[in-house]
Amino acid sequence: MQLTLKTDYALRILMALASTDEVLSVDWLAAHYGISRNHLAKVAQALTAAQLVTTTRGRSGGMRLARPPAEINVGALVRSFERFEGFVACMGGEEPCVIEGACGLKPALGGALKAFQSHLDRFTLADIARRPDAIRDRLLQGVS
Amino acid sequence: MQLTLKTDYALRILMALASTDEVLSVDWLAAHYGISRNHLAKVAQALTAAQLVTTTRGRSGGMRLARPPAEINVGALVRSFERFEGFVACMGGEEPCVIEGACGLKPALGGALKAFQSHLDRFTLADIARRPDAIRDRLLQGVS
Repeated sequence: MQLTLKTDYALRILMALASTDEVLSVDWLAAHYGISRNHLAKVAQALTAAQLVTTTRGRSGGMRLARPPAEINVGALVRSFERFEGFVACMGGEEPCVIEGACGLKPALGGALKAFQSHLDRFTLADIARRPDAIRDRLLQGVS
Repeated sequence: MQLTLKTDYALRILMALASTDEVLSVDWLAAHYGISRNHLAKVAQALTAAQLVTTTRGRSGGMRLARPPAEINVGALVRSFERFEGFVACMGGEEPCVIEGACGLKPALGGALKAFQSHLDRFTLADIARRPDAIRDRLLQGVS
């Protein structure tokens, strides 16, 4: 059981942006996190589409947060990037289970996924990036 | 975010066994669920190793539950089959994150995973297989 790389990268981008007032480019983020530029670029597009970041073009262009970190909810973010419907094959997966309708696993897992999300709903980007200077320092040290 | 196939198959095997007093073989389960015999066999071995099922050999051999369904906890089962440490790259994954130590994501996700597991801890195999006859009927119809 794992968060997708997409959600992981979305959280990393947002935390980096929460750590500075500067505009950060995908190239800068890829170099400083030491992760794939292509993957990051796709996630950056999704964050722009979700109106969580704004993008400026050009040589000194890049991303910045579209709203304050305290107004970006972690649970909502994870929901918008993760697919929970296919969490187990019987829950909307491509391979429906033979005992579907007779087994009580779906509501149990559904409740567990709700509990997971409800816990994350308690956090905003400001909470998980509550040490912006430390994040910034680590990113600056991390350049490859 | 998905449960691994291993956990999915472990739950399917246990639910089938909870639906009958008969011994069920891996071949029977693979045919009736319509899923891979090889995958099922590996999971059956893990269930035997975890002392959740007992196996008898020979022509009419197969598995049966090692204890009553009400004594098999779903949360404990999921914990023994899923790896939660690598839930996101920074949580014990192979690719540690540059901002590790400065970001507050780990405790937030850790709490969410705990809430997920605590919810499942409320269920036993008896709860999720509380309609054994219906499970049995569907399995018998599902033979390929």
